[in-house]
Formats: sequence, C-alpha cells, structure tokens
Amino acid sequence: MTNPAGLTGEFFIAGERRGSGEVFRAYDPAAGATIDDIGFFISTEQHVAEACAAGHDAAIPYADLPIEIRAAFLDAIASNIEALGDALIERACRETGLPVARITGERGRTCGQLRLFAREVRDGQWMKLRIDHADPDRSPPKPDLRLRMVPLGPVAVFGASNFPLAFSTAGGDTASALAAGCPVVVKGHPAHPGTSELIAGAIVQAAADTGVPAGVFSLLSGTGNAIGASLVADPRIQAVGFTGSRGGGEALMKIAAARTQPIPVFAEMSAINPVILLPAALAARGKALAAGYIGSLTLGSGQFCTNPGLLLAIEGPELDAFLAEAGQLVEAQAPQTMLTAGIHSAYEKGSAALAATAEVQTIARGVHPTGPHEGRTALFSVSAADWLVNAELRHEVFGASSIVVRCADRDELLTVLADLEGQLTATLHMDAGDHDDARALLPVLERRVGRILANGWPTGVEVGHAINHGGPYPATSDGRTTSVGTLAIDRFLRPVSYQDLPSDLLPPMLREGGQTGMVSRIDGVWSF
Amino acid sequence: MTNPAGLTGEFFIAGERRGSGEVFRAYDPAAGATIDDIGFFISTEQHVAEACAAGHDAAIPYADLPIEIRAAFLDAIASNIEALGDALIERACRETGLPVARITGERGRTCGQLRLFAREVRDGQWMKLRIDHADPDRSPPKPDLRLRMVPLGPVAVFGASNFPLAFSTAGGDTASALAAGCPVVVKGHPAHPGTSELIAGAIVQAAADTGVPAGVFSLLSGTGNAIGASLVADPRIQAVGFTGSRGGGEALMKIAAARTQPIPVFAEMSAINPVILLPAALAARGKALAAGYIGSLTLGSGQFCTNPGLLLAIEGPELDAFLAEAGQLVEAQAPQTMLTAGIHSAYEKGSAALAATAEVQTIARGVHPTGPHEGRTALFSVSAADWLVNAELRHEVFGASSIVVRCADRDELLTVLADLEGQLTATLHMDAGDHDDARALLPVLERRVGRILANGWPTGVEVGHAINHGGPYPATSDGRTTSVGTLAIDRFLRPVSYQDLPSDLLPPMLREGGQTGMVSRIDGVWSF
Repeated sequence: MTNPAGLTGEFFIAGERRGSGEVFRAYDPAAGATIDDIGFFISTEQHVAEACAAGHDAAIPYADLPIEIRAAFLDAIASNIEALGDALIERACRETGLPVARITGERGRTCGQLRLFAREVRDGQWMKLRIDHADPDRSPPKPDLRLRMVPLGPVAVFGASNFPLAFSTAGGDTASALAAGCPVVVKGHPAHPGTSELIAGAIVQAAADTGVPAGVFSLLSGTGNAIGASLVADPRIQAVGFTGSRGGGEALMKIAAARTQPIPVFAEMSAINPVILLPAALAARGKALAAGYIGSLTLGSGQFCTNPGLLLAIEGPELDAFLAEAGQLVEAQAPQTMLTAGIHSAYEKGSAALAATAEVQTIARGVHPTGPHEGRTALFSVSAADWLVNAELRHEVFGASSIVVRCADRDELLTVLADLEGQLTATLHMDAGDHDDARALLPVLERRVGRILANGWPTGVEVGHAINHGGPYPATSDGRTTSVGTLAIDRFLRPVSYQDLPSDLLPPMLREGGQTGMVSRIDGVWSF
Repeated sequence: MTNPAGLTGEFFIAGERRGSGEVFRAYDPAAGATIDDIGFFISTEQHVAEACAAGHDAAIPYADLPIEIRAAFLDAIASNIEALGDALIERACRETGLPVARITGERGRTCGQLRLFAREVRDGQWMKLRIDHADPDRSPPKPDLRLRMVPLGPVAVFGASNFPLAFSTAGGDTASALAAGCPVVVKGHPAHPGTSELIAGAIVQAAADTGVPAGVFSLLSGTGNAIGASLVADPRIQAVGFTGSRGGGEALMKIAAARTQPIPVFAEMSAINPVILLPAALAARGKALAAGYIGSLTLGSGQFCTNPGLLLAIEGPELDAFLAEAGQLVEAQAPQTMLTAGIHSAYEKGSAALAATAEVQTIARGVHPTGPHEGRTALFSVSAADWLVNAELRHEVFGASSIVVRCADRDELLTVLADLEGQLTATLHMDAGDHDDARALLPVLERRVGRILANGWPTGVEVGHAINHGGPYPATSDGRTTSVGTLAIDRFLRPVSYQDLPSDLLPPMLREGGQTGMVSRIDGVWSF
C-alpha cells in the first residue's frame, strides 16, 4: 500500500485541495484488482457550483492578462508535468494497463502540445485582427470597425480513458481552452484518478508560479454521470470539450442543448476509419500492407480513436492472399490489457456479436487471453452486399477488431464509401496505377472525413498546424472543428467588433499601427 | 389585378418552376388586404425532398467548380436583381409596407453584399491553407500534412420578414453559403412571396448563365411551419441559416439537434441592444442624444434586429431632461405600417403589457395610428431595482418600443449590464470624462455582446470585413459566428487534412508553391 506519488485523493477547486467523506478507488486492469493505497474523494453538486463560480470570476481577469503570462502558464504546466518524473509514469501505467514506453511517449506528446499552445498564444494570430476604416464622406457615413476574437468563458473538459495524459486533465482540450483564454473545469476520468490528481497539481502549481488566477483551473472527481451532467448544465460553463464514446458525447450534447442558454459541445466520439486498398497497391505489396494493417489495428490494444476498424478492397486472389497473410499475423498477436473492465467487456461483446453474425466470416482471432482484462484481436470479413444491408456492422467496436469488406468492383467500393457516416480519417493505399481511382474517390472522402491519408496508417495523429482531428457527425459533434493541433484554439473564441471606439479604449492590438507582426485584414487587404 | 412583375406564383426546384394545387395569397399591410393578382403555390414534403436531393447531387460538382465561376455566379445574381428594376421595388414595398427609399437602399445593400462575397470567393483566404512538411528523420517519422477548408454541403436558409431583400432569398445567409461552395434551399418567407419569386428567378437565371449546376438553388414556399421543419430534418441538409424570432430559431435548433446527424443552426434571433448614456455625455448633449435615440428607435417602424430596446443611464436632472426631450419626440412620431398583421399584433400586445406593468412608467406614445397595421411608438421607463427583479421586462418587443432603465449609480448600472442575456450590440455614449467609466464597462460588454459602439446608434449594420452581427445566446444560437460581413462564410466551411497525398492528387492550392497570393501557414510560419 505504498503511495510513492504522494497522492491525497483530493480534487481541486481554484487551486485548493478539497474532498471529504465518500471515496472511490482506482483500478489496476492488468492485475484485475482495485488499487488500495488511496481513496479518491467524490465531488458533490456544491463542488461543481464552486468550481464554475471560480471559473466565472477568473474569466475576465485571465482573458485580460498579458499574453506572455498566459503563454508562460502553459509552459510551466509542461515543466511541472515533467518534474513529476517516474511517479507519474508509474501511476498512469498502473491505472491504465498501458506499457511504460507508451505512457512515456504520451507524456512527451502532452508536454509538447502544451508548449505548442504556449507558442500559439504568443504568435497571436488567433486574434484574427480586422480593421475597416471610417469613410465620413460616404453616404451614409461609413463607421470605423475593428474586430478581434475573445474567449468564450469557462470550459468544461472531460478527460478520455484511452489517453490518460494527452486527452485528459492537461490534454488537448485543456491546453487549447487555456490558450484561448478560457478557465477550465475538468471532470477527471475515474479510470485514472491518481494520474489526474498528479496532473492537476502540476497545473495548480503552474498557475501559482506564473501569477494566473487560481480560478482558471479546477478538477472534479467522481465515478457516475451526475457530476459531469451538473457541470455541463451549470449556467457559467460556456463550452464543452469531450473525447469518448458516442453515447457519452450524445448525452452531453442533449444536456447542453436543453440549457436556457445552449452551448457548443466539441465531442470527439466514434469512427471506424476506413482503409481502402486500391488494386495496384494490393497487387504489388499485399504482404507489407497486411503487416501495416495489423500493426495499426493492434496498437495500444486497438484503443485509438483512429483505429482502422474497416478495410475495403476489391475481390480477387490478391485480396484472398492479403486476408490469409493478415489472418496469420492476427493469430500470432499476443493479447493486451485493455483500459478498463467496462471497455474490455464491451469489446468482448462487440467482437462476439460480429463473430455470431451469419454473413460475417471470422478470418482470425489472436492468442487467447490469460490476464483479467486482455483483449483478443479479431479480424472479420463480409461482402459489400451484406455490409450495405446490415447497419449493425458499422458500429465501432472499440478495441483491436476490424472488418474487411469485399467489394465486387470499383462501383461497389464507391457505394460503400458514399454510404458511410462521418469519419475521423480515411486511408488510401495506392500505387501510380491507382491514381485515377483515387481521384474519383477523393471528392466523396472529402465530404465524409476529417483527414485523408495516402499509404500510411491512421493511428498516428500528428500534433501540428495542418492536422485535423475531427470529422462529420458522428466522428465528432461538430465537424467544423478539430480537437488536435493549433486550429483547436478556434473552438473557444468568438468575434467582437468595436465601432468608432476612441483609440485609448481599444485593445492595443486594434489601435492604429498596433498590428505589427500580426496577420491582419485592413480595409479588406491582408497584411503581415 | 395587374401583375406587372410577371409573377406565376410558382416556386423553384433546381432551376425549374414548380407548383400546382393549393395556393396562398400575399398581403398588403398598408392596405390591410390580400393581394389578389396571383396565388402562390404551396410546396409539399415531396418538393422538400426533391430540392434537398438536387442540392445533395449538386454539392460536389459545385464545390469543385473553378473559383472564378462561383464568383461570377454571385456577381450575376446581383446584376439580375438589379435588372428586375422597378417591378422588384414595387412588389417588395407592397408586400412589406416599407417605403420605396428603404427598399431601394436595401436592394443596393443586397447586391453590394453579393458582390462582396464574389470578391471574397476570389480572394480565396477562406481556404485557410496550412502545410506542415514531412520530416522522415524524426523518430517517429513526421508525415506531410496539408489542410484546407471545404464546404459543409447543402444549407437551408430561412428568409426574414424585416429585410425582404438583404436577409431573405438572396440575402446574407444565401450569399455566404453559396460563396462557401454550398448549395442552398430557401424556405421563402410567406410575408413577401412575390418578392421571393422575383429574386429566385434572378438566382436561377444566374446559375444558368454562368454554368453552375441548377441544383445549387431551390426556393420552397408555404405559410405554416411544416415545410421548414421537414427541410431542417432532411438528412441531406448540413447547416441552417435563419433570421427571425427567438421562438422560430429555437424550434429549428430543436429539430436540428434531434436529427440522427445533428447539424449546426446559425440563427440570429433576439436582442434588446442596450444603449448606455455615460454621465458626461448625458450632461453635455442630452438633447442631441434624445434625437439620435428616437431616430434609431423608430427607423423602419423599429423592426431592426439591432433596434435600441433598452437605454441605461444614471438618475438625475440630466436624465429627467433627456426623458422629457425624448418623450416630446416620441409624441410627434407618426405611426408607420408594420411588416405583417402578426408582427403588428405582437407589438401591440408587448407594448400594452409594458404599459400595464405597475412599476413601469409610460414616458410617451407616438401619434395614434389610423392605418390598419401601423405601430405606435412607445417609450417607457423603470428603475433599475424594479428591472432587476422582473425578467418579463427584458423580452424583446419587436417594433418601436424601448425602455429606459434609471440606475442609482455606476455600480447599479454595471449590475444591470452584468445581468443581461447575450446581445447583438451595446452602445456607449461618452465624452472624454467618461472614458474611465467606459473602461470599466468594456470587459463586461465584451463577454455579452457581439458589437460595441461608441457615440453612434446600433441600427446601422455595416457589411464589411470587421463587422460582427452576432452575439452570445439568445442574440444568436451560436455566438462564435456572424450573419453579416465576410466572416459569415466561415459558418459553412470545415477543415480537411491531407496526409502524405501524392502531389498530383492534392488540390492545386495545396501543392508545393501553389499558395501564391494566399495567406498560408507553412511549417507554423505565416506567409503571404
């Protein structure tokens, strides 16, 4: 019952550790047992209200801080997370069943992301400055108008279980909301409460170190849905960031839409991420494609938003050979611990349902699990004709399960694609001889997915400027946004115009000549 | 029963005139009588489905047309509207009760807006190009990522009654959606069906003249809510533009949220647009402020989204003098015909309810109407203390009715502002001695309104680049967007990333060196 990380089981409201009374315990999925070193206190409705009030009160002071302080705050969060050292890695591994290398890599991604947003804050182009000068001689006289983006206000963030660092307490939603100038109230994911407590401590310390109001960050804690529902319903919350299941995202969308003031929900929910093997590529390198496919499918026990759950190709001996090769690779796949008992059980149910569907062929299953919550890789196949008439087959099975849809010809492949719901990604494997086919597919894919890959695998999601980790519903709740990369900051901003405001009352960057170094649009002309 | 405009009473589906069976008649509010020259056919559920299917089928071909054709289409719409000549002006005046000068001005605004969006299409910056080059030496290798914005797909547009040209069939929503590359299905406002038919004819002709697929535009027609509800529920519609009442907007939001695939609704709904008279300005020029206030209040019979329905000032002899002056001006106000019998009746009911509220003082009423649907200007006053406890007082009374809230001091004025719902605008009247007060109010206003004016009146809404005609809920359904000005195009776009796509398959503007003349972000660096 050691507690090397110094956890107290408390949550945080505006910089203060809080909690008393009822607790819940973390769970070690690899051991199949609760972690008994510490109990985590459960936040109440009153705590939700306090956290939201603190965020509300901090909103204007935080938004109006010098840009450099906001950026330094994000940098300090990253440094403080790194300073947690092995205690964070050990705790996150224990609470998720993910291996050390993966969590270490994810920490690097998380801190890199925070520093990227610090640079983005300093870059300042998110302000989107525009000036239309007055023309008093026009009839009617033309006013002076100046526009910039301002933060929305307090944002509720729901951590995801599958990326306990990069999409959780200090993950992409938190980083981009803080970068936009919005206070954040996190509902910590109950699958990794110790990890969340450690990260929240790093954020709270960073605020104190950089002179940011303590109310900009709170972490609430609990196991059921009640705390999260109250958080989204709180009138002070102005937007929601969420990564998780379609059911969870849709529940939050309903709460947000039913408020007196509906608010935007940015939920990244569900995708099966079609991979298309075009004929020349399949003929030329089927064996390598099979290796790439099964590698991507089984990464992190298949628990990636961009996991390739669907593969499309045209019937023939090349596809048969590909399936045989992929099947052999699957059979050799060792089982991997899944994140939670619930996720494991849903995976077992989903893959069993596919196996039991008459028109679905089981190509191969991985090595039989021996550990408590290990997922067994599953590869299925179905004809396009059967796929098209059975909507059940299209539901995401979260984990290392994928289905190969065998199409009679190019037209049938296009029909399957045109019939898909919105997706995070689509991947085309092609050789030079496939480019005409690809050209015909691209317009269809552009309308259905957020990211189109060529000759790669969707499970890597680069954190940068040109990434879109989003896509039409139900991949996300709002296909006009991304939850990864610098464009994510736009979710939490809105425009304000200033008409004929005296110069001394304008924000400095909107005064005459105040646009140095900024991409701005002045009288319709872009300048830099 | 002349029909100089050559109306047929038909609606349009993908370029074809349609309609048979049941008709409804237009109404002349100034005469208080139906216009019997022509009956307007009512669209059915089947017509909704046909229009949406046509929009869906046209979406990819339209999006992939050369930019110049899309721009020429918008220019041609403007020219064709102008070519309608006096027939359009006469019909619009007759159907709305608005005077010729106003409708002529509105035609200029509408055509100017279409041409502004044509220039915006050519400008191309709405594509928001971003490139992150590959780095094969990084571990793991960094992919090549390129991002642009693409159109959402077919958009449903609901015309507004109060701007039969600028916010209706070829108004800002239609212009910005077409500019974004989205087909449009308009549900015409039944208050001006002849105007809508004329404008739709101009759009259809423009599509034919410029080689744009006919499916990019349809106009549906009808009097109840059923057609509009079916339109928003149609799975092929991908976004909604609406200007109208809060009730209407919220009904569409509910339908959109209940779809299998929820879609964004951009509804501009309701605002009372606070005007704040700061002490030095009030003392120095109360008489001129009263004239400006009543002029703005009564413009177009008060039927502007940005009508000043609320004025705040601090109690004292200067405010008493202001109220006396404003009251005299109101008493001299001639009644003006309102847009529809329903709007007039709602105005009478709303202003009567204010007059009957015990704590509200009636400062003055305008000249008693003699025409059938004329609105009588109304000016009320209430103490801030009473205002704060009676939420009923804050509802918009659409028309020339305004309420002056008398505040005891600066703190109470701030309390009233901080308690307001989201607004399209807030206006500060100030002299040099008021700047400190203004500085304290600005952060509060920035969080609550879309546009902050100094020493002007909110009823003018400039169509430009730096305008925001939007605001937090319930001013609009989504405070992150504007329905006027070039930023409106962003509502109908979403990002797509291309990862490692061969150059010949990339959109030309995303190939190496294809960004000439574009503001683009390459490896994080903004260039132009």
